[in-house]
Amino acid sequence: MSEATKHFRHGKVTIVEVANHLGLHPSTVSRALNPDTRKMVSSAVVKKVAAAAKKLGYVPNSMASALKTGRSAMVGILVPDLSDPVFPPIIRGAQQELEKEGLTTLVASSYENAQQERVAIRTMRSRLVDGLMIATAKRHDPLVEECLAQGIPLVLIYRTVENRSVSAVVNDDAYGIRAATEHLIGLGHCRMAHVGGPQNTSTGYLRHQAFVNTMRAGNLNSNGGLIAFVEQYTEQEGYLKLKDLMATKKEFTAIVASSDILALGCLDALAEAGLRCPEDVSLTGYNDVPMVNRISPPLTTLQIQQFEMGELAAKTLVELLNNPALTPREIYLRPKLVVRGSTRPPSQI
Amino acid sequence: MSEATKHFRHGKVTIVEVANHLGLHPSTVSRALNPDTRKMVSSAVVKKVAAAAKKLGYVPNSMASALKTGRSAMVGILVPDLSDPVFPPIIRGAQQELEKEGLTTLVASSYENAQQERVAIRTMRSRLVDGLMIATAKRHDPLVEECLAQGIPLVLIYRTVENRSVSAVVNDDAYGIRAATEHLIGLGHCRMAHVGGPQNTSTGYLRHQAFVNTMRAGNLNSNGGLIAFVEQYTEQEGYLKLKDLMATKKEFTAIVASSDILALGCLDALAEAGLRCPEDVSLTGYNDVPMVNRISPPLTTLQIQQFEMGELAAKTLVELLNNPALTPREIYLRPKLVVRGSTRPPSQI
Repeated sequence: MSEATKHFRHGKVTIVEVANHLGLHPSTVSRALNPDTRKMVSSAVVKKVAAAAKKLGYVPNSMASALKTGRSAMVGILVPDLSDPVFPPIIRGAQQELEKEGLTTLVASSYENAQQERVAIRTMRSRLVDGLMIATAKRHDPLVEECLAQGIPLVLIYRTVENRSVSAVVNDDAYGIRAATEHLIGLGHCRMAHVGGPQNTSTGYLRHQAFVNTMRAGNLNSNGGLIAFVEQYTEQEGYLKLKDLMATKKEFTAIVASSDILALGCLDALAEAGLRCPEDVSLTGYNDVPMVNRISPPLTTLQIQQFEMGELAAKTLVELLNNPALTPREIYLRPKLVVRGSTRPPSQI
Repeated sequence: MSEATKHFRHGKVTIVEVANHLGLHPSTVSRALNPDTRKMVSSAVVKKVAAAAKKLGYVPNSMASALKTGRSAMVGILVPDLSDPVFPPIIRGAQQELEKEGLTTLVASSYENAQQERVAIRTMRSRLVDGLMIATAKRHDPLVEECLAQGIPLVLIYRTVENRSVSAVVNDDAYGIRAATEHLIGLGHCRMAHVGGPQNTSTGYLRHQAFVNTMRAGNLNSNGGLIAFVEQYTEQEGYLKLKDLMATKKEFTAIVASSDILALGCLDALAEAGLRCPEDVSLTGYNDVPMVNRISPPLTTLQIQQFEMGELAAKTLVELLNNPALTPREIYLRPKLVVRGSTRPPSQI
């Protein structure tokens, strides 16, 4: 290994190495590299230092300044699962906004595992993140409480907590499910099933409440045993829960699923039972993830504002970083009903 | 703001703050918190310190040790687009493997923009990442060359470079497209179009080469103007390029698309031209991203090993971190042809 190569160890070239390379004092190099102090050095030296820094691959070490200022310019984003197509556009919106402020993101998935969540947040904090964006909140969430008690700037995304103690940017889930349910009522459906999300999450809970309330407002019976809840938002769970409902032999002509993924599982259960969608049973999803417009039948669902959600959450977090005393705010984004082939009037009419 | 709250500023509680809280000397707290020195302190003090650390939310500051040791225990992962369903499972495989080694990941998207790539890598390096995993490589990639010249441990994923100067874990793209093309030849197709990826990426280039070579091996004409290349892997580009090919009025009965996303665009172009898939034209994709098995028609495609790709790339990077002199290695993962409804024998037979 040559002398030069040794300096390049892990690509982490320091000011001292640039100085040694040029035979200058490190403080001269430091001044030349810092726009604020550059005028204290001759322009010839500034040029020479810039060229050497580039050649050697010197990159300003933002970690050293992080330790001095107590700000790392990093933000942690925790999502349930990066492979769930709901989350990448939210992250993109957040990253684009955070980059404007010079903030980088650490992204982690919890896979809906409480222990994994705890480890992820601990790891992010050990990296001195300035704040957190969390999409994994439960309605009652000790981990969120802990972060708040410890004064960590925090914004919830997609899911929120019950006690409204923290800023959050979420879908208006009540509005969304009401729109889907009213659409089905409008088509003439009166016996409907609901395959709901986990009731310990705001999404699962509020969507279920909205289904029940909308049915009640339409003078329809929502509790004839036609409601089931999954433990996790997976196709498999959606499939199993709809099978359970069908096993009760209670009749229904439409299903309001709490998410697109659950709706896909429902489609499988229907197909297995020899039922056609939408001829025998109509079906709605939630989120409008990519390609549900291309499946057979194309899914009627709620289009959500993912990019905007990430963007607004990032803006809120930046405000919070600048003003830790900011009063918690909740922003609700209204989803839009997109009617496609999976819903039609019931054939019995 | 109370005295206590001030200490919790940004949740970054230091050893000094724990010490002040207990009226102990910081060095005592430091000894009590460090498993290696704990025995130098009475067990009563260890207990008291542990309880206070927990209550105040003290988290060991891994950045301070990073500056001392020159290792941050962070790895940067750069992908073209987090919203492309190809990448999250690769990232998951990598993260799971890296976590075993106590390594955290910084994830960034370049959106196929060279300037964005440069900024992302610079940002990661300013965070002192120990190494990089890059899924954005071009066949000739100055940024990869620069990282190598500067001795940054680097593993390419999904796409590789021409000069094989760097470790990479990629699909066996030649094998994959040969399998798809042979499948179509086996069904009786002899006039086939290819909607290829960007030729400055290994994926676009090698898949195109494999198409041409397989056609040639089957004594079929591959260059009757039935090949077009997109600039980016997007539905829109797939749609436009197939429209261009159809405008030439040259006949074909099958299309080998360079990715599922391009295949979706092809489906739109076919539908617009009043052509049915697979009755009039068969179609194959690449990657087997979620839901292409549910679209109409379900897509014949190449299933790739995303999780394993991430896992192997992470293992390679860890080896490289431990042994910077490791000879570059290329690992090719063989995709599997999954035959679905989008391919059938040509109707003219």
